[in-house]
Amino acid sequence: MQDLKQYIEDNKQRFLDELFELIRIPSISSKPEHKDDMYKCAEMWKKLIIAGGADKAEIMETEGNPVVYAEKILDPSFPTVLVYAHYDVQPAEPLELWQSPPFEPEVRDGKIFARGADDDKGQGFMHTKAFEYLVKTNQLKCNVKFLIEGEEEVGSPSLPKFCEENKELLKSDVIVVSDTGMIAPDVPTITTGLRGLCYWEVELTGPNRDLHSGLFGGAVANPINVLAKMITEMVDENGHITVPGFYDDVIEVSNEERAMMAKAPYSEEEYKKALDVEELAGEKGYTTNERTGIRPSFDICGIWGGYTGEGAKTVLPSKAYAKISSRLVPDQDHEKIAELFIKHFESIAPKSVKVNIRHLHGGQAYGCPIDLPAYKAAEKACEEVYGKRPVPVRSGGSIPIISDFERILGVKAVLMGFGLEADAIHSPNENYPLEQFYNGINTIPYFYKYFAEMGK
Amino acid sequence: MQDLKQYIEDNKQRFLDELFELIRIPSISSKPEHKDDMYKCAEMWKKLIIAGGADKAEIMETEGNPVVYAEKILDPSFPTVLVYAHYDVQPAEPLELWQSPPFEPEVRDGKIFARGADDDKGQGFMHTKAFEYLVKTNQLKCNVKFLIEGEEEVGSPSLPKFCEENKELLKSDVIVVSDTGMIAPDVPTITTGLRGLCYWEVELTGPNRDLHSGLFGGAVANPINVLAKMITEMVDENGHITVPGFYDDVIEVSNEERAMMAKAPYSEEEYKKALDVEELAGEKGYTTNERTGIRPSFDICGIWGGYTGEGAKTVLPSKAYAKISSRLVPDQDHEKIAELFIKHFESIAPKSVKVNIRHLHGGQAYGCPIDLPAYKAAEKACEEVYGKRPVPVRSGGSIPIISDFERILGVKAVLMGFGLEADAIHSPNENYPLEQFYNGINTIPYFYKYFAEMGK
Repeated sequence: MQDLKQYIEDNKQRFLDELFELIRIPSISSKPEHKDDMYKCAEMWKKLIIAGGADKAEIMETEGNPVVYAEKILDPSFPTVLVYAHYDVQPAEPLELWQSPPFEPEVRDGKIFARGADDDKGQGFMHTKAFEYLVKTNQLKCNVKFLIEGEEEVGSPSLPKFCEENKELLKSDVIVVSDTGMIAPDVPTITTGLRGLCYWEVELTGPNRDLHSGLFGGAVANPINVLAKMITEMVDENGHITVPGFYDDVIEVSNEERAMMAKAPYSEEEYKKALDVEELAGEKGYTTNERTGIRPSFDICGIWGGYTGEGAKTVLPSKAYAKISSRLVPDQDHEKIAELFIKHFESIAPKSVKVNIRHLHGGQAYGCPIDLPAYKAAEKACEEVYGKRPVPVRSGGSIPIISDFERILGVKAVLMGFGLEADAIHSPNENYPLEQFYNGINTIPYFYKYFAEMGK
Repeated sequence: MQDLKQYIEDNKQRFLDELFELIRIPSISSKPEHKDDMYKCAEMWKKLIIAGGADKAEIMETEGNPVVYAEKILDPSFPTVLVYAHYDVQPAEPLELWQSPPFEPEVRDGKIFARGADDDKGQGFMHTKAFEYLVKTNQLKCNVKFLIEGEEEVGSPSLPKFCEENKELLKSDVIVVSDTGMIAPDVPTITTGLRGLCYWEVELTGPNRDLHSGLFGGAVANPINVLAKMITEMVDENGHITVPGFYDDVIEVSNEERAMMAKAPYSEEEYKKALDVEELAGEKGYTTNERTGIRPSFDICGIWGGYTGEGAKTVLPSKAYAKISSRLVPDQDHEKIAELFIKHFESIAPKSVKVNIRHLHGGQAYGCPIDLPAYKAAEKACEEVYGKRPVPVRSGGSIPIISDFERILGVKAVLMGFGLEADAIHSPNENYPLEQFYNGINTIPYFYKYFAEMGK
């Protein structure tokens, strides 16, 4: 593949132009008003994959946003790779913190700045270009399928059913995904674990209307005060989550694997400095990487209630709300955890408030063994480009659909991502370094090469 | 004063017409765009008091909205009564909940519906008519001064300085205020206590940007979780506020006075039913009326942070905010309490967050002894009209300027209000029953009579 680097060099500008077209479509899956953009974005993907050399590509309806399915079937004896990516993005708010408009990509300091620049338009797009290169240069020795969905950022609610109904169509030997990150630009990384997720919205109602905090304050339970107390009670002084049964199915990771994990480059000082915090906090007895990689978490993602405008309004509010999420690890079942949480949260509510809990979504955790042939192929591909073996890491993030794929399609996924921590995915000023972008396009073709060599 | 009832009867319609003119001016002090209305409203008050028989009335500038000052000085040997009221009103929002336009007064079911119908245009207006009656019938045996301000609903920021600069002008033997309420239409009530207030806004900063709750959750302190914990720690399991020194200056009310307070009509079942709560909550060892009347409170008036839109966003936010208020009782000093709170709140913050606290405003609590001659005069005036002795109650609300009057002018105030809880002051559909309105005009002249009889 000595012509690969040259191919990338010759097409650099075109690659960027195409990616930017994709990014300009504000395909925000959590906002219903962007429904049209979801179709526009799916169409653009279809066009891109066809242009890359697919035999066919189509937009297929689901119960939610459509998926793009495409394929190039060369030979039944070849192994089949299913490329999974998502074309939807997170909301861009708070808009005022962006240095350039979120949906008008701009290259500054060698990085593409835009919502979706990394997650997952930039990373997903690399696969279409690797595929294009392999097809055009006649070096593709795998059958390839693409499955690009539009609901990953809202928990992929429609994709499991779509998979159930299209098992034959989606049949493959491995799923390849670039939606994760690398430890550092010179440390190739393959993600071998993903946390699961449970997400709830809780509503507490105290009095039936906002009250004057003077006339009633001290005698009537304030739902914000109560919510704060209930949230606080969910985690004990050691950082353990107090929901009964919460840890029952957590697989305790062996000391051996924890020792391996400890070898990943990590500087607590740099980590703290990057976040501008004086002190880290988490579960007692675990390191930072363990806290995000092999242990569950409990975070309030949002909270609101009462008067939040300028100045002082003396109100004892009727309502208080919180969005609460827990990251889960193998083998916690998100549905079981959701039930345990709801039961416990209701049980600790005082009678002075009414509690209403909505279970918004959830997903299972995932683990990939490092002796999987596809993992080995990814490892060799990374070595080819980076000159060293990639580090297997367990990510704290969640891609619930990955464990669904395994459950429904019976296929493992290899998570070969090129994002960096500084990419600020889900945040203002999301970005993706051009170096990562081009290195990704450079690495992926080798994966196909080595995976094909391993045979079906 | 056998002609008083007849006088009211003969002038009922004119009284309403005049009051309605006052109400139609949307004198909302918190909205700068109503600046002109403040002057218009002050002019109208001036006109009303002059028509009532004042020797002089003038609009005097302050650093904020102007005040109306008026006087009728009959004889230096007469006691002097200073009538305080305010011509500004609360905003009318949310407008869609009003059954008739807030600034177009309408009588329905024997009640005047409008913003300011009770608070404090309706109640303040009663004094101009009582004054008018006494002057016209030659029964006034007091000197009378009026001080009508335009910033009560925003905490009277300019009035203390105005008082400092006009001590001689405002010299009086008692201040009379109708800006409070009665327990029930047939239970005359004099408010003998007002709570003070401290109001802060706190900002917690965790990481320097919103983080992905998967990649960082469990390892980095979430400022919302931390804020919830800090708020929770401010009150112990008995409902005591944990700020060291917080209760040092609280005057413990005698068992005798608590027994008197317990005689006020109160039904816990009806109270809970009206608020639709199954259980009340507050400081251990105190009744509901005591919790709002003689004990301080700690309420979160607003809280916000992270993602608060539709659906699920998995964010570990950078910031969390709360608006926090404490109602105070005699002799807590609001400035001392503000310092104690800030010091304590900062001291309990973990190193994982930065804390920024803004002290928004505060005011002193107030107490009026029931053996004060002016209290006795008010008591007898109520007996005259209602046929029974009024109940002395301590209100949970705050009128910070009342304690400022005492501090600056050295004069106690008698709070003889005629509002009812159902009047919905500060809320949509504020109203004032005609019965209360006319009974107020009927009661006030007797106050002057008995206060004059007590001599200077």
